[in-house]
Amino acid sequence: MTTNEYLDQHRGRFESELVEFLSIPSISTDASASADVARCADWLADHLRGVGMPHVEVIPTEGHPIVYAERCDAGQGAPTVLFYGHYDVQPVDPIDLWTDPPFSPVIRDAKVYARGATDDKGQVFLHIKAIEALLAVEGRLPVNVKLLIEGEEEIGSPNLAPFVRQNADKLACDAVLVSDTSMFAPGQPSIVYSLRGLAYMEINVQGPNRDLHSGSYGGAVQNPLNALATIISKLKDEYGRVQVEGFYDDVQPLTDLERTELAALGHSDERLKADVNVSTLFGEDGYSSIERLGARPTLDVNGFLGGFTGEGAKTVLPARAMAKVSMRLVPHQRHDDIANKFISYVKSIAPPGVTVDVQDLHGADPVLVNRNSAAMHAAVQALEETFGTKCRFTREGGSIPVVLLFDQVLHVPTVLMGFGLNNENAHSPDEHFDLSNFHIGMKAVSRYYHLLAQTGV
Amino acid sequence: MTTNEYLDQHRGRFESELVEFLSIPSISTDASASADVARCADWLADHLRGVGMPHVEVIPTEGHPIVYAERCDAGQGAPTVLFYGHYDVQPVDPIDLWTDPPFSPVIRDAKVYARGATDDKGQVFLHIKAIEALLAVEGRLPVNVKLLIEGEEEIGSPNLAPFVRQNADKLACDAVLVSDTSMFAPGQPSIVYSLRGLAYMEINVQGPNRDLHSGSYGGAVQNPLNALATIISKLKDEYGRVQVEGFYDDVQPLTDLERTELAALGHSDERLKADVNVSTLFGEDGYSSIERLGARPTLDVNGFLGGFTGEGAKTVLPARAMAKVSMRLVPHQRHDDIANKFISYVKSIAPPGVTVDVQDLHGADPVLVNRNSAAMHAAVQALEETFGTKCRFTREGGSIPVVLLFDQVLHVPTVLMGFGLNNENAHSPDEHFDLSNFHIGMKAVSRYYHLLAQTGV
Repeated sequence: MTTNEYLDQHRGRFESELVEFLSIPSISTDASASADVARCADWLADHLRGVGMPHVEVIPTEGHPIVYAERCDAGQGAPTVLFYGHYDVQPVDPIDLWTDPPFSPVIRDAKVYARGATDDKGQVFLHIKAIEALLAVEGRLPVNVKLLIEGEEEIGSPNLAPFVRQNADKLACDAVLVSDTSMFAPGQPSIVYSLRGLAYMEINVQGPNRDLHSGSYGGAVQNPLNALATIISKLKDEYGRVQVEGFYDDVQPLTDLERTELAALGHSDERLKADVNVSTLFGEDGYSSIERLGARPTLDVNGFLGGFTGEGAKTVLPARAMAKVSMRLVPHQRHDDIANKFISYVKSIAPPGVTVDVQDLHGADPVLVNRNSAAMHAAVQALEETFGTKCRFTREGGSIPVVLLFDQVLHVPTVLMGFGLNNENAHSPDEHFDLSNFHIGMKAVSRYYHLLAQTGV
Repeated sequence: MTTNEYLDQHRGRFESELVEFLSIPSISTDASASADVARCADWLADHLRGVGMPHVEVIPTEGHPIVYAERCDAGQGAPTVLFYGHYDVQPVDPIDLWTDPPFSPVIRDAKVYARGATDDKGQVFLHIKAIEALLAVEGRLPVNVKLLIEGEEEIGSPNLAPFVRQNADKLACDAVLVSDTSMFAPGQPSIVYSLRGLAYMEINVQGPNRDLHSGSYGGAVQNPLNALATIISKLKDEYGRVQVEGFYDDVQPLTDLERTELAALGHSDERLKADVNVSTLFGEDGYSSIERLGARPTLDVNGFLGGFTGEGAKTVLPARAMAKVSMRLVPHQRHDDIANKFISYVKSIAPPGVTVDVQDLHGADPVLVNRNSAAMHAAVQALEETFGTKCRFTREGGSIPVVLLFDQVLHVPTVLMGFGLNNENAHSPDEHFDLSNFHIGMKAVSRYYHLLAQTGV
């Protein structure tokens, strides 16, 4: 039996095990869920031991634990791959928009629906299953493998950086492999070579010292909700251009080659409009959608809250208002610089009569990956052989801050080999993962390890 | 024993009974509280029977019940007064800002703290206690009294108008007496002669069909939170002037006399700033604070909500956003006309890529009361004798829609004799009522009835 035959034979069990993994509500942002996050780490560690990883640790941090495993008996000269993924998941709000409960996974139309299905538990799990198959069929792994699976990716990995810096020897490797990105389209294998950075801010506006009756005070006291709306309205102009002073200073203009490459990906505005059901797209003037989505920086309000939001009418002039605002950054913007510029700008546009506080919640610098490493060439070949079609290089709009960290500490090439799809609702209700990519991903990964063993890095 | 001596003697019991009344959570906006609202109506009816009202009814409506009572044995030629108040209360959010639970009334520094203390249970209750004292000491009321106490004032009195129209005979009277307003300042008796109207709107903005990952979609898809903030920012200009087209068309300019009268009230911007703890006041350019507060129309966002508002960071491009916006209206603006203008204007400024829906939640026209009725003269005299100081006429920023209704249906003068204070947190946490006004109010009311009996109306 070949490894691929083993993978085919055990599809049903792999899906059942994934469902078990997905049913643990490992929401890292939610302090009350930390017992579940810990339980998820333990489940994962047990599972890794079960598939034949000889060394598995659940490493405590000041936050949620890191799961680490390694098998380094591939023999002399064999390269070492460090796999990175995360077992924590996004919050589930708005919960009422889920078709099924987010932690009661359901399989429909060959997709598994659950929070974390595509981001990132499903992707993590296919790597573990590829290892299981290689060990079961071939008795060994073609390369040394280290697995680093954290529980704090969705809150900005606060404890991963110190861990990686303090354990550079333990994590020493020849290439990093990350599966936390999306394929450009179904059936279209792709490798992300650029990730946007992130500056995530929270604005709090304090007006009067208490909620006031809008009839008795309205007209004389500045309303913090009106004030915050005014601030937000000045963050971008009507052409979608960010107005934070100096925001574009370090942004490199797109080269003609990049614009041509992006255009060649065959992105369709019509398909995007139909996917999200809007009549018109909107973004920075002068750029195509595909450029705006990955190659240009953006700004979005992620949430706002203030005053009375229940059913009916309450005539209140609220005491305070809050907004969360994040900016996606591109090379060579730096998140701390952008955060500082944002704070200065927001303070400069604050209307009279309110106190405005701006916090830098977390940030990540943008990343450009070397497309010409040997590890990258092997990855392209593995994907093309497995999928039977040409692999594309893409830019991803999201951030994976650890990629920059690995580059700085481990000094090895990183390959972003993702098996998700962009419309799998990664951060929204009814998140799901296409099981055909779950299964083909295992084959691509096992092929990648074999190719790496042959070609070296 | 005089009636006033009786009132002095029973202060402690009156306060205990008020605490009992206040401990019933009669929140009319909250569908889940309707059993409590009904319980409050029953409690009130029982209490009215107890003080000697011979005819008491709890009248069901399609919403919350109306409590009605009357005692019409004052003798031939005696005038009839219809008292109006409400036993329903505002919601309690934000609940965490209350010092004590809103329905566990606490007396501190001669003030009673509870939701509904000043708006309007405390004021309603002092009228009942005045009646109790008159009946206990004098064995009769000087005038015929009808009490109409509704349970839906805080939701716009949807069922009161049909009731009043269908029961004009039952409610026939010579004057209406309302206690749901504030005194201009402690120790300063005042009668409100102008009430602002209200147009209360809700804006819902729909962007994409689901919450999206802001990294994967941000930049190409219009964000409904940014869009709603832009809409809100265009509702007023930087000088506090409402930008809704035609908003000021029917507003009468303030006369020099009115401006002089308002200025003479001795409003202090410094005191207002200290009261609400803001460094600067803000309102429509060209008007003083006291003019903005009662004599000019205003616009306030009462609440907004969208996206992720929990702790930490979630990189979501939300599907939708909501804001509640209300406008206070002055003579001769009409709420339905303003609502229509608001809807047209908001639709006209909606950014591309989102669907904007605007709902008219409820409205009330502004009111100007005749200051020269006999009922008004008696009220002024009763207040001046009881408080020992001159009574002022004031404009109130809030709305009491039923005042207009009584005028239209009953064709009699209305007196707005309020005993609240503006800083008693009517719609916010730690609502309270000054017990000295609770007690002196009873004396003023009993004196008013005697004066009305002497002078007629």
